[in-house]
Amino acid sequence: MNEENHQIRLAARPEGLPKPSDWEQTTEPVPEPGEGQFRVAVSHISIDPAMRAWLNDVPSYIRPVEIGAVMRAAGVGTVTASRHPDFAEGDIASGVFGVQEHAISDGKGTFKIDTDLAPAPTWLGMLGLSGITAYFGLLDVGQLKQGETVVISGAAGAVGSAAGQIAKIHDCRVIGVAGSWEKCAVLVDELGFDAAINYKEERVGRALREHAPGGVDVFFDNVGGEVLDAVLTCLAREARIVISGAVSQYNAADVKGPANYLSLLVNRASMKGFVIFDYADRYPEATAALAGWLREGRIIAKEHCISGGVAAFPDALLGLFAGVNTGKLILKV
Amino acid sequence: MNEENHQIRLAARPEGLPKPSDWEQTTEPVPEPGEGQFRVAVSHISIDPAMRAWLNDVPSYIRPVEIGAVMRAAGVGTVTASRHPDFAEGDIASGVFGVQEHAISDGKGTFKIDTDLAPAPTWLGMLGLSGITAYFGLLDVGQLKQGETVVISGAAGAVGSAAGQIAKIHDCRVIGVAGSWEKCAVLVDELGFDAAINYKEERVGRALREHAPGGVDVFFDNVGGEVLDAVLTCLAREARIVISGAVSQYNAADVKGPANYLSLLVNRASMKGFVIFDYADRYPEATAALAGWLREGRIIAKEHCISGGVAAFPDALLGLFAGVNTGKLILKV
Repeated sequence: MNEENHQIRLAARPEGLPKPSDWEQTTEPVPEPGEGQFRVAVSHISIDPAMRAWLNDVPSYIRPVEIGAVMRAAGVGTVTASRHPDFAEGDIASGVFGVQEHAISDGKGTFKIDTDLAPAPTWLGMLGLSGITAYFGLLDVGQLKQGETVVISGAAGAVGSAAGQIAKIHDCRVIGVAGSWEKCAVLVDELGFDAAINYKEERVGRALREHAPGGVDVFFDNVGGEVLDAVLTCLAREARIVISGAVSQYNAADVKGPANYLSLLVNRASMKGFVIFDYADRYPEATAALAGWLREGRIIAKEHCISGGVAAFPDALLGLFAGVNTGKLILKV
Repeated sequence: MNEENHQIRLAARPEGLPKPSDWEQTTEPVPEPGEGQFRVAVSHISIDPAMRAWLNDVPSYIRPVEIGAVMRAAGVGTVTASRHPDFAEGDIASGVFGVQEHAISDGKGTFKIDTDLAPAPTWLGMLGLSGITAYFGLLDVGQLKQGETVVISGAAGAVGSAAGQIAKIHDCRVIGVAGSWEKCAVLVDELGFDAAINYKEERVGRALREHAPGGVDVFFDNVGGEVLDAVLTCLAREARIVISGAVSQYNAADVKGPANYLSLLVNRASMKGFVIFDYADRYPEATAALAGWLREGRIIAKEHCISGGVAAFPDALLGLFAGVNTGKLILKV
């Protein structure tokens, strides 16, 4: 192939929000797959809050992105050349292809997707790691029971909007916390949440005491910070807090710990973290359930697609932290 | 009876450490038991960190002590008059008798103790709620497994010294965190801890990376604050943090939340609170196990008894927060 492969690489470790100079755009020849490999023309890139954590040079659940490396990202694309037995030209595949137009894969962590069932972006959102994270976080880590009262922070995001709908399917009372009235309206009017709280305009603790007078049984937290502290004041007995993320803290120099954590003691409650990769063996269980609900119209997959190709990645990531998206944020290549 | 009953009552809700003026000493006639009641001459009063929380007018696992009420306290005493079928004059009983010399009880939450098995103070410490808290906190809440690495904060206190010894019985590697070299020496030399860290002189995180290079499986936390934050940086995968208390924060105007709580996510770890009263039905199980270990010499019950009667209570409580005691702090009446 004579085309070029445009890539976004990490140039410097950001402090706070990534600056333009923290990234470098590079252009390389489109690579050829070796034996046992295939090449993908990336069509959609998943923009995730966790990306910010991958930029820090600290031990975490995954190794940091190295300086000079193509930025790590999940994506979907079409196989354009293959020397791999399981992937043929024309297949549409999902995998960690990075922020680039063409990627080489050995098939590890990569799977073919069925675009008849759902369009490509949905395979990065509701049927991808976002939906899977919501599924296991709520049902396995959070041990959600029918009829409980559930609070979701970052409720209009990819994971949050999935979690809330999964909780509704389990006959729970679901309260979302989001950052604008528009998002709150989507949660209640489109996605079936029982209530939504605009944390930028309302006092979360006070609003929760109104919407969840019996206390919160499960809090699925994507945000951390003040929202976490507010929910801690409203726990029911034996409440479970699922730490899925802490998007409010990823760009913070000093993480704000939950000052109200002793509510865990008073309420015999727990706070538990998880990493979705640990559930890799069980992804098919989640995908099957989510695909079924999607087909039955019991959940809605929302995506917010932005165009501009890989060059638009730095701004897309800032947009995520600014909360531009309702549903999964996707960069179209 | 013509004797007087001296009592300590709560005069004002303290801010920070209780001041002398937050207490009032009162003198009343020794009360007579009504039908179904008995009277106890209190000999020993248990001094507990949780007492500080009972002084705050905020919802908690137990109602606050009311202004003007006799201060709530567990104690041991001899029955001096009885109109209760299960308690006879001369019996020695343990119960929540308050900070006073003579108490009336209806028998609820009160039980007779066997001073042949262990002296009265031990029934407030290792065989009382301190030992029971350590037992269920470690084995039930913390799900301690043989051979794990366990860290105990407030390790020289009543609950901590019990927890460390229970963990040793379960073949665990046990590291205590305490506030003086003397206490650290007691933990290692007398109580069989594998290591001890003086948090006032050492950097807890650095010391833990040395003493627990494979990470901490169970952290039994009585202290909170900086110690909790330091241990969070040293968790093993699927670590369990048991929130038994937070003595460093009870007198604080602003509780310091654990800034490193996202370590729960990275390490798939949990933080769980509990209230020992929930285990009331199972107290006999813990007491039987602890009494057996005590008889076999596998655990040592340490008590720090101070004299001075009920008038010495305000200073005794301050002494607890200053860390004067190694083992259970007891006020002799």
